[in-house]
Amino acid sequence: MEKILIKQYKKPKLSNSILIGGLPGIGNVGKIAADYIIEKLKMQKLADIFSQYLPPQVFVSEEGLTHLVRNSIYYKKLPGRRDMLILVGDFQGTTQEGQYEMTYNILELLRKFDLSLVYTLGGYSTGRIVENPRVLGAVTDLTLLDSLKGNGVVFPKGEPGGGIVGSAGIMLGLAKELFDIDGACLMGETSGYFADPRGAMEVIKILAALLGFTIDLKDIEERSKQLEQLTGKVQEDIQNRAQKKDDLGYFG
Amino acid sequence: MEKILIKQYKKPKLSNSILIGGLPGIGNVGKIAADYIIEKLKMQKLADIFSQYLPPQVFVSEEGLTHLVRNSIYYKKLPGRRDMLILVGDFQGTTQEGQYEMTYNILELLRKFDLSLVYTLGGYSTGRIVENPRVLGAVTDLTLLDSLKGNGVVFPKGEPGGGIVGSAGIMLGLAKELFDIDGACLMGETSGYFADPRGAMEVIKILAALLGFTIDLKDIEERSKQLEQLTGKVQEDIQNRAQKKDDLGYFG
Amino acid sequence: MEKILIKQYKKPKLSNSILIGGLPGIGNVGKIAADYIIEKLKMQKLADIFSQYLPPQVFVSEEGLTHLVRNSIYYKKLPGRRDMLILVGDFQGTTQEGQYEMTYNILELLRKFDLSLVYTLGGYSTGRIVENPRVLGAVTDLTLLDSLKGNGVVFPKGEPGGGIVGSAGIMLGLAKELFDIDGACLMGETSGYFADPRGAMEVIKILAALLGFTIDLKDIEERSKQLEQLTGKVQEDIQNRAQKKDDLGYFG
Amino acid sequence: MEKILIKQYKKPKLSNSILIGGLPGIGNVGKIAADYIIEKLKMQKLADIFSQYLPPQVFVSEEGLTHLVRNSIYYKKLPGRRDMLILVGDFQGTTQEGQYEMTYNILELLRKFDLSLVYTLGGYSTGRIVENPRVLGAVTDLTLLDSLKGNGVVFPKGEPGGGIVGSAGIMLGLAKELFDIDGACLMGETSGYFADPRGAMEVIKILAALLGFTIDLKDIEERSKQLEQLTGKVQEDIQNRAQKKDDLGYFG
Repeated sequence: MEKILIKQYKKPKLSNSILIGGLPGIGNVGKIAADYIIEKLKMQKLADIFSQYLPPQVFVSEEGLTHLVRNSIYYKKLPGRRDMLILVGDFQGTTQEGQYEMTYNILELLRKFDLSLVYTLGGYSTGRIVENPRVLGAVTDLTLLDSLKGNGVVFPKGEPGGGIVGSAGIMLGLAKELFDIDGACLMGETSGYFADPRGAMEVIKILAALLGFTIDLKDIEERSKQLEQLTGKVQEDIQNRAQKKDDLGYFG
Repeated sequence: MEKILIKQYKKPKLSNSILIGGLPGIGNVGKIAADYIIEKLKMQKLADIFSQYLPPQVFVSEEGLTHLVRNSIYYKKLPGRRDMLILVGDFQGTTQEGQYEMTYNILELLRKFDLSLVYTLGGYSTGRIVENPRVLGAVTDLTLLDSLKGNGVVFPKGEPGGGIVGSAGIMLGLAKELFDIDGACLMGETSGYFADPRGAMEVIKILAALLGFTIDLKDIEERSKQLEQLTGKVQEDIQNRAQKKDDLGYFG
Repeated sequence: MEKILIKQYKKPKLSNSILIGGLPGIGNVGKIAADYIIEKLKMQKLADIFSQYLPPQVFVSEEGLTHLVRNSIYYKKLPGRRDMLILVGDFQGTTQEGQYEMTYNILELLRKFDLSLVYTLGGYSTGRIVENPRVLGAVTDLTLLDSLKGNGVVFPKGEPGGGIVGSAGIMLGLAKELFDIDGACLMGETSGYFADPRGAMEVIKILAALLGFTIDLKDIEERSKQLEQLTGKVQEDIQNRAQKKDDLGYFG
Repeated sequence: MEKILIKQYKKPKLSNSILIGGLPGIGNVGKIAADYIIEKLKMQKLADIFSQYLPPQVFVSEEGLTHLVRNSIYYKKLPGRRDMLILVGDFQGTTQEGQYEMTYNILELLRKFDLSLVYTLGGYSTGRIVENPRVLGAVTDLTLLDSLKGNGVVFPKGEPGGGIVGSAGIMLGLAKELFDIDGACLMGETSGYFADPRGAMEVIKILAALLGFTIDLKDIEERSKQLEQLTGKVQEDIQNRAQKKDDLGYFG
């Protein structure tokens, strides 16, 4: 079989389209943001991508229905001068080769839809719970800095230190070097300990500003609050315990 | 060499054939069930499949005869309106790519034999010894639910939680998405600690009902009883020891 | 580059040739035996095989000369009705795919030299030092049993239990199933703890009998004795220590 | 996508060119030396090499600019009868196949530039801090020994014991066996605990002598001194602590 199999369902005429890459990753920030936009903007499915680079696995729904793991691309024609594509999926390619091949084939496919810019989404792990998550950026060309900074993206010196590994990084790299398409990575801060709607919401806000769409944030705000209450409790517990441990510190 | 090498021995005319996938897995439930049906129904070998996706290994029989590890397909023309194919083997493909390629190539081969439905067999690990193992199901299309439920397959909400990994999952996924062939997975409950004829027997019963063949279950019942006595003893031992430990709990 | 690169140096006319496979393995029994025969019978090099399936490594000689790791094939025309080929090398293929591909390509090459039988050599790990190592066998066809038994090979029931993994196994399997060439595996008993000339010597004796060549065993006998003295001491030490530990057993 | 993608920027006419391989490795000795020569001799970039054999990763600069990981080749026409090529990069190929393929493709490319000799650079790990690091050598042909010894390279018997693994080894092996091009490996001694400019400087000196170029060593001397002060302190600390521990040895 072919290593990557694309089932394309639609042939929309898109122009000046922007791809948003939202595969699973740190704190699932990118995936949560992408899934949310697809749902709220009622985006259309363009294609499913099946591949040997994904685990040999089906998910099973509550009713017992199987779902072969995949990546999917959705699209929406925006009123402005730009159309939008979103990549989501159950997994990233599981090997180094898979990362390159999946990304390359997706860019190759989307080039037919006048792909002109790529935003990849990711989480930036802080290792602790963040009250007001920032959105960090990285760009393939320094001319992109101004518009991103103007919309709230920050570029702290030396962050992210180790670079960007996986789909969010390689997609920018291949788009730039092999397709001559620029792009940026938007990384929402997250503790990295659980799926984090809070960082995802900040990323959505910035995407809405950058692409000029409006989106109802009520549901994701709700989910963020629920999580905050939960993690707030956890934090309290941790502090309480730390407190106690401190009191008894001389016991070892 | 080709990555997958099929030696086809027969060219039977089959119609409306159903493939039963019984490769090794959890509790070897699928393999035990498939091997038993092949033996008791005196099925004919259609093909051997050798592959780089299997370990580089030969087994050695008691007399000293080598056997290159493989997958094999058997067939039987059934009196009703459906014929039967069974996939068995020494191993599943050992890599992600191997899982996809082996499955794809087998489906590609069997399409020539009018493949119309796939049942994959597996074990559903309970982590404890089960008195009356259920057979859980998952389907590629909800229209299959009724006939399965009517024959005793259960679909408890949220089980299996993590989906179905390996041959039993990917075969359904690829059959559905790439060959437009529906199917179901039948998972016999098993502790998961040893090769389990008990769960296999329940799966066989359901297959016999679904496909309309009769099969002598005496031997597998015998093996199940022997195992029950063995595990019964083990369980007793465990309980006795737990008991003692409890009695002496204050010792640490 | 091609995954396997064969540099063939000679084009001898061989007939009815027997391949002896002696790649590194348990106790290096096969490699020691094969290297010894090549040296003592002054065999000619037929080909070097370089491959991505071997480690990316050069060895460096005492003078500082590099040697790219490889497999090599040697040949010798024997006076009788059979000629001899020997496969040796620095490593076996390091992956599953590598095991299959290396073996297949070597058989494909040697078919041109009228390959008619394969003996693969290996070690059979006993986990303890063996006074008089036996040579165990496994065959691709039961008609080979008699001549092997007549020359001292033993076929104890249920040994080797887990089959034969790696080059010594897969070469028999592929020769049989894909090239219709029979063969046998000869496994010299060895502790498995160090490179073992003792087991290798027993394998050489049997090969000499089977193929009808004479070979000077003085050097390998010498090496075996040296090793025996060494391991004898080690064993004595172990026993002495075990003795002492026993004497003081009540201390814990 | 192709597994290795070469973006060639220049088409210089080079003759009798010598390739210096300086990819990351032990103590980063080779990479530091190669990067330093490229910078100080203001060498021109010939090509970038992107590949699936490198991690799926972009680095991010202090300003936030992404850089897709790669290997790069630089060149300089030297006044003498030999021109110079240098291979540097962010990573070596990460798999065995990657090591062979990257190396082969680079040699294949550079053959067009009249490649006639290869020096690969590496570190030779001593496990302790070395006052005056030697440069050890290994050659593909013993006729190269004299010129290397004459320029200060040493060939101690039995070093390096395990051979040369990775790019520095395989490049010599493939150049010799597949391209009939000779070469040598130059290994600067290094503790192996950190990126080590000291060993790199010794390698640079020898390359300058061998190829007949002059180079300003001030900056790397400076970096070496800084590191020496740092490691000197660390060593002192270690000795002090060892001293104390010795004094109190009877405490355990």
